[in-house]
Amino acid sequence: MSNTLKVGIVGASGYTGSELVRLLMQHPYAEITYITSESSAGKEFATVHPSFHQLLSKKLISVKEAENVETDVVFLALPHGVSMDFAPRFLEKGRVVIDLSGDYRLEDAKTYAKWYGQDHKYLDWLEKAVYGLPELNREQVKKAQLIANPGCYPTASILGASPAVHSGLADAKIPIIVDAKSGTTGAGIKLSATTHYSSLYGNFFAYKAEGHRHQPEITQTLQHLSKEPLRVRFTPHLLPVDRGILATIYIQPSKPTTTEALQTLYKEFYNDQAFVRVSPQPPHIKQVKGSNYCDVYPMYDEENEQIIVFSAIDNLVKGAAGQAVQNMNIRFELQELTGLEQAPLNP
Amino acid sequence: MSNTLKVGIVGASGYTGSELVRLLMQHPYAEITYITSESSAGKEFATVHPSFHQLLSKKLISVKEAENVETDVVFLALPHGVSMDFAPRFLEKGRVVIDLSGDYRLEDAKTYAKWYGQDHKYLDWLEKAVYGLPELNREQVKKAQLIANPGCYPTASILGASPAVHSGLADAKIPIIVDAKSGTTGAGIKLSATTHYSSLYGNFFAYKAEGHRHQPEITQTLQHLSKEPLRVRFTPHLLPVDRGILATIYIQPSKPTTTEALQTLYKEFYNDQAFVRVSPQPPHIKQVKGSNYCDVYPMYDEENEQIIVFSAIDNLVKGAAGQAVQNMNIRFELQELTGLEQAPLNP
Amino acid sequence: MSNTLKVGIVGASGYTGSELVRLLMQHPYAEITYITSESSAGKEFATVHPSFHQLLSKKLISVKEAENVETDVVFLALPHGVSMDFAPRFLEKGRVVIDLSGDYRLEDAKTYAKWYGQDHKYLDWLEKAVYGLPELNREQVKKAQLIANPGCYPTASILGASPAVHSGLADAKIPIIVDAKSGTTGAGIKLSATTHYSSLYGNFFAYKAEGHRHQPEITQTLQHLSKEPLRVRFTPHLLPVDRGILATIYIQPSKPTTTEALQTLYKEFYNDQAFVRVSPQPPHIKQVKGSNYCDVYPMYDEENEQIIVFSAIDNLVKGAAGQAVQNMNIRFELQELTGLEQAPLNP
Amino acid sequence: MSNTLKVGIVGASGYTGSELVRLLMQHPYAEITYITSESSAGKEFATVHPSFHQLLSKKLISVKEAENVETDVVFLALPHGVSMDFAPRFLEKGRVVIDLSGDYRLEDAKTYAKWYGQDHKYLDWLEKAVYGLPELNREQVKKAQLIANPGCYPTASILGASPAVHSGLADAKIPIIVDAKSGTTGAGIKLSATTHYSSLYGNFFAYKAEGHRHQPEITQTLQHLSKEPLRVRFTPHLLPVDRGILATIYIQPSKPTTTEALQTLYKEFYNDQAFVRVSPQPPHIKQVKGSNYCDVYPMYDEENEQIIVFSAIDNLVKGAAGQAVQNMNIRFELQELTGLEQAPLNP
Repeated sequence: MSNTLKVGIVGASGYTGSELVRLLMQHPYAEITYITSESSAGKEFATVHPSFHQLLSKKLISVKEAENVETDVVFLALPHGVSMDFAPRFLEKGRVVIDLSGDYRLEDAKTYAKWYGQDHKYLDWLEKAVYGLPELNREQVKKAQLIANPGCYPTASILGASPAVHSGLADAKIPIIVDAKSGTTGAGIKLSATTHYSSLYGNFFAYKAEGHRHQPEITQTLQHLSKEPLRVRFTPHLLPVDRGILATIYIQPSKPTTTEALQTLYKEFYNDQAFVRVSPQPPHIKQVKGSNYCDVYPMYDEENEQIIVFSAIDNLVKGAAGQAVQNMNIRFELQELTGLEQAPLNP
Repeated sequence: MSNTLKVGIVGASGYTGSELVRLLMQHPYAEITYITSESSAGKEFATVHPSFHQLLSKKLISVKEAENVETDVVFLALPHGVSMDFAPRFLEKGRVVIDLSGDYRLEDAKTYAKWYGQDHKYLDWLEKAVYGLPELNREQVKKAQLIANPGCYPTASILGASPAVHSGLADAKIPIIVDAKSGTTGAGIKLSATTHYSSLYGNFFAYKAEGHRHQPEITQTLQHLSKEPLRVRFTPHLLPVDRGILATIYIQPSKPTTTEALQTLYKEFYNDQAFVRVSPQPPHIKQVKGSNYCDVYPMYDEENEQIIVFSAIDNLVKGAAGQAVQNMNIRFELQELTGLEQAPLNP
Repeated sequence: MSNTLKVGIVGASGYTGSELVRLLMQHPYAEITYITSESSAGKEFATVHPSFHQLLSKKLISVKEAENVETDVVFLALPHGVSMDFAPRFLEKGRVVIDLSGDYRLEDAKTYAKWYGQDHKYLDWLEKAVYGLPELNREQVKKAQLIANPGCYPTASILGASPAVHSGLADAKIPIIVDAKSGTTGAGIKLSATTHYSSLYGNFFAYKAEGHRHQPEITQTLQHLSKEPLRVRFTPHLLPVDRGILATIYIQPSKPTTTEALQTLYKEFYNDQAFVRVSPQPPHIKQVKGSNYCDVYPMYDEENEQIIVFSAIDNLVKGAAGQAVQNMNIRFELQELTGLEQAPLNP
Repeated sequence: MSNTLKVGIVGASGYTGSELVRLLMQHPYAEITYITSESSAGKEFATVHPSFHQLLSKKLISVKEAENVETDVVFLALPHGVSMDFAPRFLEKGRVVIDLSGDYRLEDAKTYAKWYGQDHKYLDWLEKAVYGLPELNREQVKKAQLIANPGCYPTASILGASPAVHSGLADAKIPIIVDAKSGTTGAGIKLSATTHYSSLYGNFFAYKAEGHRHQPEITQTLQHLSKEPLRVRFTPHLLPVDRGILATIYIQPSKPTTTEALQTLYKEFYNDQAFVRVSPQPPHIKQVKGSNYCDVYPMYDEENEQIIVFSAIDNLVKGAAGQAVQNMNIRFELQELTGLEQAPLNP
């Protein structure tokens, strides 16, 4: 492709927004046309995110102003609820929209209402939205106008469990257990007692153990791969690190298998997928830091008859901004790796 | 009790040894008679552990010298394998021995040989050894000459699962899953690539996923509480913090229950246990830091029909040195809390 | 001493308050009569600070209620400005007050107004207040009704520089440079962008480089030890750890000296001081963690003709609550070490 | 430039080597011809550095094998002492050599012998070597065959102090004080008690306070900018983070100045330098993480008559591998920013 893509970023005061800017700045065919922020409109982007000092001289504008600016694609990096309303404003002008919030991920409006605490107001757009996990939905992404970029936990969990579920190896009677651990950037830039430094330093704990809205997202997607109704027990924990998710997944097998057979199954399943790496040992979150890779390691515990899968991503890249750029590449028929080739930052 | 206990500490170059010194120094009825170290014999203890500078002026001696010194109790803070040989030397002189290694924990010599890679040479002492988890074995501890102090992971895991297993609520057909996360002091003072700062900082991963020697220890102890043969899937992860273990435990229920019923069950089970606190929410590892408490929170996930228990300890205290002092208190008929009352260090 | 001291703690929602509780709970002669919190009055203390679950069952009360309760001593763990008003209310009832805020530390009301942004309203009490650094002011503390407990940075800095300044070794023409680094608990429990976990993790930087209110406190105290007017350049940095301060102090010598001579000077100066340890090498902040010790290491750089002193404390203990308890011990003629003997928590 | 540069990397088991690979992989005009490792020759590079799994399939070879392979440039990422011997072997074959060790940095062989504990064996090459700090020595780098890539501390320190020294603002009678703090990757991949995770976590301290070999390197370079003989007091501290250096620099002024004047001076001095950013406030090390930028902030403390400069870099990038690539770009007449444009990874 010879032409440059004009890109709008809506909502840039948070981490997802700044990570989109970081990745799109080094994308050879993308040009950031505007960046919006309601709270900081008029300010330089680099005043809000000082690590960009002298690297990007661009003033933040308001969404109202942005709406009328011609772009090929708009990334929405907004809180849940806000994104629901903003997406249609850009969609109706014909833009391709990649929404990084949870507003267009759940297919069923009732499930949305239950987990997000409000009714969905745009059922037509909800129906047209494509769940942008390229490894499972690449063909739909190619034609989508509205791409619902997956959540960070769901990305790690679904990529970890899919081959086993798809192959029929998962016994649907017993819930799949996802014991997930995430760095703090997943909780965003908003201050909270939980992510106060003195409190979290040297600490570790589970949160939202009674229920987290990423659970229905994981279940919905894995359900599409299974003939029988399945359930997913999802337990998130907060890791005292900034970036990275590790999901440890326990699957009751429908029949005995071996680690070797699982390795082969996973390698075949992800054979054409540039961003999923089947590891020779349990992955470290630091081995994917700053990159768009998802490292998975499946194994079989013979004594306990359990399939166990470890799945690691950088929550801000493959779990958010990187996957969004990957979706843009697919949607606009670029090489999927474009702008996303950099190796992880390790150590 | 009016008399002072004479205490010997064998092996003080590591973290368990220095933690024993820290706790015994503030114990009102214990007097540290000697501390040994083969590699540093002749040096001041505080040269090896500089945080004790000016607090304890005691020269390290060799085990050979220590053997002939009269004491009431000897703590062995030695590597596996070494402890096996040293324990009998003190036992035969009539001392009470509290062994913090894994050498006398597994009842079955074959299981020991399989997991520790060597045959057990003292089957008679192995048979006499009492597994020193006071909350389950207090009466035996009172009469024991050789107390096998439990491992750190087993302490957290067993205290988390015991009430559910004991009550018959655990469905023995499905393995109990223990997804455990530990701080680095559990790996000891010995240098390794895994615990190199640059490598572990910002990192998180599972290790020994194929099998860890604490698994048979957990299984053996829980098995005593269960009528039917049970299995335990145990997955350890390394947390980038110094102290603390959180075990997240998934138990398939034999019949439906509720969070309330589980809370009641656990509170009753641990009613008389000073060091187990049933929490009103999932515990934080920092809420037990530096203390001998184990915080547990059981809950029921109705949708997925799963019992989930969170269990947190400080691996060096309740998971090692603190529990050893607790065992000493019990064995010598002191108040169980003596010298162990201090509140956690938080933040 | 046979009688028990009745203790009131005013302001317990923050870290200084909870640390006071932790230390006073293990003090053999102190009895916590009440703990106040305006925002949480009526709640259990342990609901606000869950690490005390089951260890202390005490309801928080309001200051209004507390004022009329008889106690021997009242600790004020309140924000600057608030403490100024509250202290007289207790002082006028005859209580001994130990104020952990900055309100009664600066002798000169104008300096106070400049650095704290408000006029001092109680000049009489300001004049009567004793600066509670026991190593310099023990005799005055013994007779004080109002003890101004020193700031955390000043404690480390003053103890590091005092022997050199007092001996006349410091050349007053060149400012003493204090390059100080502090853990985050020094910034308190209040949420801020600076101490947001994602932001501070893996980070390090100087703050308030243009001027910090602990600078006049350090200068004032060192000035009392010097015949000539001296100046102090103070640069605070935020360390990504929870506890600990290291002050690196550069002093231009009035005449050449040696490391040996400095070691001797410091050991003599602190000869009778239980809580100052002259180290044989630059101290680690973790070697004083959780304890009331201050470790100092003075050295001489011959090539550059510089005296350099390293001084380490736990900012919440020797830098706040521990020193307050030390002051209480002195004021009420207890052994100075009472309740403060525990060894540092390391690792 | 149309042609591709053939690049050899000698020594790839450490962090500098893997960071060179990371940066050169994304360099549009560089092609990695070989990577050597004596200890791992024959293995895949990605087995040694698993984060490169599937990104680079290249077997490690021995130096002996490498010597005869034609390349345009050779990077030496070897320990001090080893590099001294290896450099000539490549230089004599006509290759351009960029040495990342300290072996060719100190101009005076006696100073080298004193600080590195061995005599220099190649005085002719030592004389020809160019100190590769492009911001000061760009013209010499353009013509050099042997480029001595600066140390990490010296890079931060020299860039922080140069404008003040060059302008004559520094009073040479009083030593410049560099109080420096570094992340652990600066200490390399070799295991040591100091960088054992349990020991360093939550810790902070000064090391090599009596003298560090980066001190003569800083002094030598700053001396070239000063008419009068100057001295530098350098105190390194170990930060418990993986990457990043902050140098806090205190300079006694020869005459009073202002923060504004210093800001102007620094902006002019670094006007044409792509990688030095004069910040509007004290820089955070995380604001340069993973990037080749050096952020500096000069200020004036009027009360104490002190110039203070804060200087931050990523020690593995601008402090090692990134600066080496920058030197390669200059030497081969590429745009200096080529392959180094990526924004910092923050958060």
